[in-house]
Amino acid sequence: MKASRFFISTLKEAPADAEIASHKLMMRAGMIKKLGAGIYTYMPLGLRVIRKVEAIVREEMNRAGALELTMPVIQPAELWQETGRFDKMGPELLRIKDRHERDFVVQPTSEEVVTDIARQELRSYKQLPVNFYQIQTKFRDERRPRFGLMRGREFIMKDAYSFDRDQVGAKASYQVMAQAYRRIFDRFGLRYRAVAADSGAIGGDLSEEFQVIAATGEDAIVYCPGSEYAANMEKAEARAPSGPRPAATQALAKTPTPDKSTCEDVAALLGLPLQRTVKSLVLATDEFSAAGEVVKTQVWLLLLRGDHDMNEVKVGKIPGLAGFRFATVAEIDAHFGCKPGYLGPLGLRQPVRLVADREVAVMADWVCGANVADHHFTGVNWGRDLPEPECVADIRNVVAGDASPDGHGVLAIERGIEVGHVFYLGTKYSKAMNATFLAEDGKPQLLEMGCYGIGVSRLPAAAIEQNHDERGIVWPDAIAPFTVVVCAIGLDRSAEVRAAAEKLYGELLATGVDAILDDRGERPGVMFADWELIGVPHRVVISDRGLKDGQLEYQHRRDAAATKVPVGDILAHVRGRIAI
Amino acid sequence: MKASRFFISTLKEAPADAEIASHKLMMRAGMIKKLGAGIYTYMPLGLRVIRKVEAIVREEMNRAGALELTMPVIQPAELWQETGRFDKMGPELLRIKDRHERDFVVQPTSEEVVTDIARQELRSYKQLPVNFYQIQTKFRDERRPRFGLMRGREFIMKDAYSFDRDQVGAKASYQVMAQAYRRIFDRFGLRYRAVAADSGAIGGDLSEEFQVIAATGEDAIVYCPGSEYAANMEKAEARAPSGPRPAATQALAKTPTPDKSTCEDVAALLGLPLQRTVKSLVLATDEFSAAGEVVKTQVWLLLLRGDHDMNEVKVGKIPGLAGFRFATVAEIDAHFGCKPGYLGPLGLRQPVRLVADREVAVMADWVCGANVADHHFTGVNWGRDLPEPECVADIRNVVAGDASPDGHGVLAIERGIEVGHVFYLGTKYSKAMNATFLAEDGKPQLLEMGCYGIGVSRLPAAAIEQNHDERGIVWPDAIAPFTVVVCAIGLDRSAEVRAAAEKLYGELLATGVDAILDDRGERPGVMFADWELIGVPHRVVISDRGLKDGQLEYQHRRDAAATKVPVGDILAHVRGRIAI
Repeated sequence: MKASRFFISTLKEAPADAEIASHKLMMRAGMIKKLGAGIYTYMPLGLRVIRKVEAIVREEMNRAGALELTMPVIQPAELWQETGRFDKMGPELLRIKDRHERDFVVQPTSEEVVTDIARQELRSYKQLPVNFYQIQTKFRDERRPRFGLMRGREFIMKDAYSFDRDQVGAKASYQVMAQAYRRIFDRFGLRYRAVAADSGAIGGDLSEEFQVIAATGEDAIVYCPGSEYAANMEKAEARAPSGPRPAATQALAKTPTPDKSTCEDVAALLGLPLQRTVKSLVLATDEFSAAGEVVKTQVWLLLLRGDHDMNEVKVGKIPGLAGFRFATVAEIDAHFGCKPGYLGPLGLRQPVRLVADREVAVMADWVCGANVADHHFTGVNWGRDLPEPECVADIRNVVAGDASPDGHGVLAIERGIEVGHVFYLGTKYSKAMNATFLAEDGKPQLLEMGCYGIGVSRLPAAAIEQNHDERGIVWPDAIAPFTVVVCAIGLDRSAEVRAAAEKLYGELLATGVDAILDDRGERPGVMFADWELIGVPHRVVISDRGLKDGQLEYQHRRDAAATKVPVGDILAHVRGRIAI
Repeated sequence: MKASRFFISTLKEAPADAEIASHKLMMRAGMIKKLGAGIYTYMPLGLRVIRKVEAIVREEMNRAGALELTMPVIQPAELWQETGRFDKMGPELLRIKDRHERDFVVQPTSEEVVTDIARQELRSYKQLPVNFYQIQTKFRDERRPRFGLMRGREFIMKDAYSFDRDQVGAKASYQVMAQAYRRIFDRFGLRYRAVAADSGAIGGDLSEEFQVIAATGEDAIVYCPGSEYAANMEKAEARAPSGPRPAATQALAKTPTPDKSTCEDVAALLGLPLQRTVKSLVLATDEFSAAGEVVKTQVWLLLLRGDHDMNEVKVGKIPGLAGFRFATVAEIDAHFGCKPGYLGPLGLRQPVRLVADREVAVMADWVCGANVADHHFTGVNWGRDLPEPECVADIRNVVAGDASPDGHGVLAIERGIEVGHVFYLGTKYSKAMNATFLAEDGKPQLLEMGCYGIGVSRLPAAAIEQNHDERGIVWPDAIAPFTVVVCAIGLDRSAEVRAAAEKLYGELLATGVDAILDDRGERPGVMFADWELIGVPHRVVISDRGLKDGQLEYQHRRDAAATKVPVGDILAHVRGRIAI
């Protein structure tokens, strides 16, 4: 491509609504253009990146035996009603009525449609396994779209769906995808982690997120530097506390702690480490009648060490706590006779069900609220001051330094951006939609499914969050809009510069390198600023002076300075630096 | 691709709602799957064809200097209100409200969005010309979707939009596209015609449709076998009648024609050629007040030769007749005092404005209704029985055998399916949206536009309408889902067959031929029927018997019988038959 025939439109300043680096830089580089909240045009430069991402995804999906199809963007509501998601999904699901007042949705994903295809087309076990995928426009009507392509409303997603005859097959299909995803993310040239994720009600460990590492990432991801262990915060576990609980050494005492309603404040006041305090969280669960009215409410007290945070996913898995909510002030008052900040497990007005985090269960001489305003107990001990906890469970988020569950050292935490997800679905959708096939014994059997997504339009944003500096984007070679830019300085004045630039440009193209020749005749400063902002990883500068010396300047976008390369070596030099 | 790993799902019978060959065959071949009225999934086999069409379109658009971008499917209504199309387009435009009750549309096309981009991005004449295109999902909420992909609601279209500084530039951009379209349609390998089309209010001749020739086509296309002249029916003109009008030879006479209300019946009754009769069509035009009420109505009488049909586009261009409607029975009665079927220009109750077709203006001794039920006049002559016509115009559709307007023989008519359209827009959208650039003189000037569409998902349907037989589809090489199928007979029993099949398959792939190996182990009859239905153009059959004779069977989908080819020559033979 020649820059004079391409559309380059860079901006000095990012628009005011761009908050994060990738959004700012994509706007400034002219990669995307906002049409409405969370709705963007992929401009020619941005589309080149998207197409490279798509090509990598497509190649690896095909290599893994998946078959590409394209499902409709506009889908009849009936299918979404069959699975109940038409109602469950809320306003994120964009709904439409057509000219005949029939209900439709704009696809946010396509489990329903692909399951509908499967129940019609997959009639026999002989046709299994099958994995169908598409790379298609999706829409999620986010309440607060922001961060450019990171949390847009219209986006491009690769979604794949595997169909198998049984769990063994489905798990094998899952593993094929998990491996394909590793190849895909390796090829992107980004630092990423595949982290175990919660698989919800289905259980099992067959759910992994592919997280692009970036300090600005929304997700905390947990990993063990000494092993392969990695999980997202929802899922990550620390090693269970080992050894016996220390013996009690203090007497129980009620201590005034006026205006100290947080564990941090209490620990400071008492001159104790935060790890000696226990925080009390009050939850409630409701039982409903068939008519949907609350017929019974159970109040729960959760105890966590003062330096720990509750993990809602783990809590939701404790028998009886599925669908929990936080207790109301009235419920707290009725049971504890005290306002939050001074709550504790001793001296309750009404009994509650108690859940102690594993770490709390092994504490001695701890501090907790006294259920009296402005007072805490110190020297609290299990078995002596209150009964041994009935329910002990892991209900907290891990923190950096926790022991890794696999015993290989301690956990570390970094931030990530979720760009891919592989997920074993089981029969969730096939059951709801009665998608069966005839098994070898001639009997109908539910299809076993998995689903596998990659945020195609999110990936470039994640890549930028990971790879940018004060001058702009730094693309990995594999997904750069162009791999090499040849900057021809003064080509309007110098036939030699023009000829040398055209020659190198032609040679790069001929050897399969995606090059752009900047023949716009801009001043060097403008040219360099544009390409550094746009983030093309390799740059060759051709100037009259350089040609006189027989030298051209090569600079990788990450290099601190240019390297002089003899004219005759430049092609080999550039190609040697490209890592695709 | 190996058939055992691909998804092949053919049907013996087409669904009942499939009316035309392409719809039936695409359903039977398993290329598409219906999700709702006019909404289809492109199954893996169908998507392969779509992708080949897209690739050809993309390559030629890029070669022509157009730049690909991708505009959103879901577009804010504001832009559509700016051009007035939000109201004008009626229910074909699918409208949505998002969670904040803001209006959106699903793009049926993207003039508004691209013009919005242009008015922001194209600031200087130095940036012009530019041509932006996308290949994207579109939606038109057709009242009666049918014929599969031929008239679907959701479809894939390539839409391109050129921006120029002046008309000269815009016309050059138009010509670049018109040439690119010829290359695209040549490469598809289909018989097609580029036909002049009406360019609406804009005028000029810069509108061409690309019609795929097919007997089942919806459009009549007019061409001159002896020249390059071709136009669609709306636009086509015959050569103006030459020579003087014959002299009157008959006296005017009122003749009873009971129950003969059509020209055909009257001509038969009177024993005259149909060409001697004149039909009367009564139109009306309304003038409206600012409040939208009709303040004045003008009634018009149009005279056409009995064997001719009115051309509404031509009529609409006659001064005063823009926006015409057919007159009501009451209006006809008030002016003619007679019911339709016996109307004519003589003896009116109230004056009307008369328009005579050019052919009628040169007739003598003609027949028309007498404005008396069951009576016609014969021997009618201009100037004697009624005044010479004030307005003479071409207001009819051409018929086969009419003289070509370029003087090179007579016109012929065939049927076509419109798959492409190139159109000079002028400033229609730039004016409505105030899309200006700074011209060389520093003053803002409206962008000159053109738009250029190709029905990507319609093209395969059109190709099938043109190329099929009783056994199924016959794809042109360029857009076939696979170019060659290698049918291995009995490969489960014969290691030789399997080895030979794998070898040829590998060699085909290695030389860039898109081949599929049918390794499903089906019986030959099933295999052949599948591939003939699917329409793969080249077939090689490998069997034990053939290998023993050192011969393989090659057959093109159009060949009446297979050709025996020595094993060693087969690769060259197949490649020699491929025409891409």
